[in-house]
Amino acid sequence: MTQADPPDRPRIRLKPKANARALRHGFPWVYANDIVTDRRTRKIAPGALAVLEDDKRAPIALVAVNPNSKIMCRVLDRDLSAQLDAGWFETRLRRALDLRERLFDTPFYRLVHAEADGFPGVIIDRFGDACVIQPNAAWAEAHLDLLTDALVAVTGVTTVLKNASGRTRGLEGLDDVNQTLRGTAPDAPLPVPMNGATYMADLTGGQKTGLFYDQRPNHAFAARLAGPGARVLDVFSHVGGFGLAMLAGGADHALSVDGSAAALTLAEQGAAASGFGDRFETRQGDAFDVLTQLGEEGAQFDVVICDPPAFAPSKQALDAGLRAYERIARLAAPLVKPGGYLCLCSCSHAADLTRFREACARGIGRAGRQAQMVHTGFAGPDHPQLPQLAESGYLKSVFYRL
Amino acid sequence: MTQADPPDRPRIRLKPKANARALRHGFPWVYANDIVTDRRTRKIAPGALAVLEDDKRAPIALVAVNPNSKIMCRVLDRDLSAQLDAGWFETRLRRALDLRERLFDTPFYRLVHAEADGFPGVIIDRFGDACVIQPNAAWAEAHLDLLTDALVAVTGVTTVLKNASGRTRGLEGLDDVNQTLRGTAPDAPLPVPMNGATYMADLTGGQKTGLFYDQRPNHAFAARLAGPGARVLDVFSHVGGFGLAMLAGGADHALSVDGSAAALTLAEQGAAASGFGDRFETRQGDAFDVLTQLGEEGAQFDVVICDPPAFAPSKQALDAGLRAYERIARLAAPLVKPGGYLCLCSCSHAADLTRFREACARGIGRAGRQAQMVHTGFAGPDHPQLPQLAESGYLKSVFYRL
Repeated sequence: MTQADPPDRPRIRLKPKANARALRHGFPWVYANDIVTDRRTRKIAPGALAVLEDDKRAPIALVAVNPNSKIMCRVLDRDLSAQLDAGWFETRLRRALDLRERLFDTPFYRLVHAEADGFPGVIIDRFGDACVIQPNAAWAEAHLDLLTDALVAVTGVTTVLKNASGRTRGLEGLDDVNQTLRGTAPDAPLPVPMNGATYMADLTGGQKTGLFYDQRPNHAFAARLAGPGARVLDVFSHVGGFGLAMLAGGADHALSVDGSAAALTLAEQGAAASGFGDRFETRQGDAFDVLTQLGEEGAQFDVVICDPPAFAPSKQALDAGLRAYERIARLAAPLVKPGGYLCLCSCSHAADLTRFREACARGIGRAGRQAQMVHTGFAGPDHPQLPQLAESGYLKSVFYRL
Repeated sequence: MTQADPPDRPRIRLKPKANARALRHGFPWVYANDIVTDRRTRKIAPGALAVLEDDKRAPIALVAVNPNSKIMCRVLDRDLSAQLDAGWFETRLRRALDLRERLFDTPFYRLVHAEADGFPGVIIDRFGDACVIQPNAAWAEAHLDLLTDALVAVTGVTTVLKNASGRTRGLEGLDDVNQTLRGTAPDAPLPVPMNGATYMADLTGGQKTGLFYDQRPNHAFAARLAGPGARVLDVFSHVGGFGLAMLAGGADHALSVDGSAAALTLAEQGAAASGFGDRFETRQGDAFDVLTQLGEEGAQFDVVICDPPAFAPSKQALDAGLRAYERIARLAAPLVKPGGYLCLCSCSHAADLTRFREACARGIGRAGRQAQMVHTGFAGPDHPQLPQLAESGYLKSVFYRL
């Protein structure tokens, strides 16, 4: 498969200690300290292409280089002669689109999930006729125009926005300036159909891309558990993810709790657009405080969901993060009716499934409750993973019956 | 919660080294070597009840005792005075039924999944008006009549069969004689609706209970991937699990491969009953041989499924089992069209998710293919787990796109 590469491409050489075998088997990143750096490599423009070689100068892959990033090379293609032209972008986007069109009846999904879709560091979410690109790596920033054109050509979307708020852009030396790349930025939140409910996505003002698709199958499972007659509590609700899905599934009443007034306003708009505004309530406040208050009030629900932000975003934060997950479980369990359901979620890379479940079980136990584990869900299939980066299975949603 | 127990119940004492804390926190088993055994304990009838005490004679739980089993005690109740009467069985069965009725529209599911449903060692599968009980622990055998009456009272089923083929019955000193407990054993396979297809379950002659419900959500996911026009291959098909679901989802053609002629006959009957007999084909033979043959024929499919028996049923068998999983992946990957899907399953307790995925990734890599990991599914929610026995998450189905 490896063809001759254009002679003008710079070459990047691995140190002998680097794991060339893993790279040949699909690992997509090269860290700066595994590379022989000299004046020439340091002068490579961020986002430029190069040929990665092992320590014996045998070529491995075509990579994008960023001398300013700890992840100095990202594998783009096994074909060393590949040109990043319109065809290259369109082929990969079409392949990504094919998976999503197989999975979903309506054009609302994560279209590109970075490395696993062949676009290292790039996230693209689709909201009908609009796409939001997060170019979180220098090569993508450098090729943004080509990527955008290909995106329009392959999907037919009319609006393309750039979201530059990703935390990792700073690590790549990139700015945080959002942009309208094609079309006109919508001046109001867009309605997004999911699991029978309508969500409102604020593509320009919201957190990240304004709406997360990753929990969609877990929302659907919660809706199955809730069913007619259920009263449900959705803590860290953001724009209403679990709550609205459970109402669409027939639940009687949902209370959504979040710290952000803007998110709750969108949740209320979504409930109204879904036609169940009268069964939906919100409470703004710190989740730990509200959980404590509800406990003091003796409130109980058929289903309780806690989908907090990443408490353990890094290995350093793991212990504190696990304690926070345990505390959430301990505060939430008493709010579940006997025989009811508790869903605890983690989007922390550092907390693996086993440790997260252990923290939850400790919390539930400290609340004096016994639990069955009914279901464990991950991010939806529009969030594929590279097997070599399987640790990027950051999202875990564990459903308990108490 | 702990009430006084009837004074006539035998008492079982833990050795100081035993983990009384884990038992107090919900761990359900006590191994024989953690127990102070004397003449009296050895004389306890298999299946009799006793009060478990810690080494300081403080009571922990009501347990069922089997002096013939390595798992000498199984926790039945935290209430020491509980009586295993009709009410006790009915309450637990009603609780188990409530979860399944929430999840499923039709009465076809695993109704009782052992420890997690409060019935240690007991499996009950429901097929409409019939139930199959696997009483795989002495206490359940001893209380089988009460359990059966309660089952009829709670569910209204007319037929109850006892399946005594479970491997673990031998470890409990129990026989392997099947029985018709209530009603009449069906003289023909029963139709079972799942995921839009009809399966045929042979409750009296089949493997275990003749049909496994555990893969249901993974069948459904495969059906989403297959879609109209797809040609699919289902290896280790048993009675047609994945193949029939994919045909129901719109696939053009399914080829099911299994070593058992009886299983394939049931699969063909299911395809006919589902109305797509003309799109369904079977091939009987050793799966490794058939995979090799198909590779030599250059056959390719849009979706390939491999759901083998447990290759790593024990820790001793782990290395050999992982090599077998790798080999399956290596033989199956070339049969997947570019851009197509490969689903690899493991029902081995000993092979955890990480190791199983690694074996699969090695096999796919050795076949010269690159993969995205699209979805990981476990056993369906009618197979709940006890958090303290989370390792019993034996079933993993990993979906790759190649």
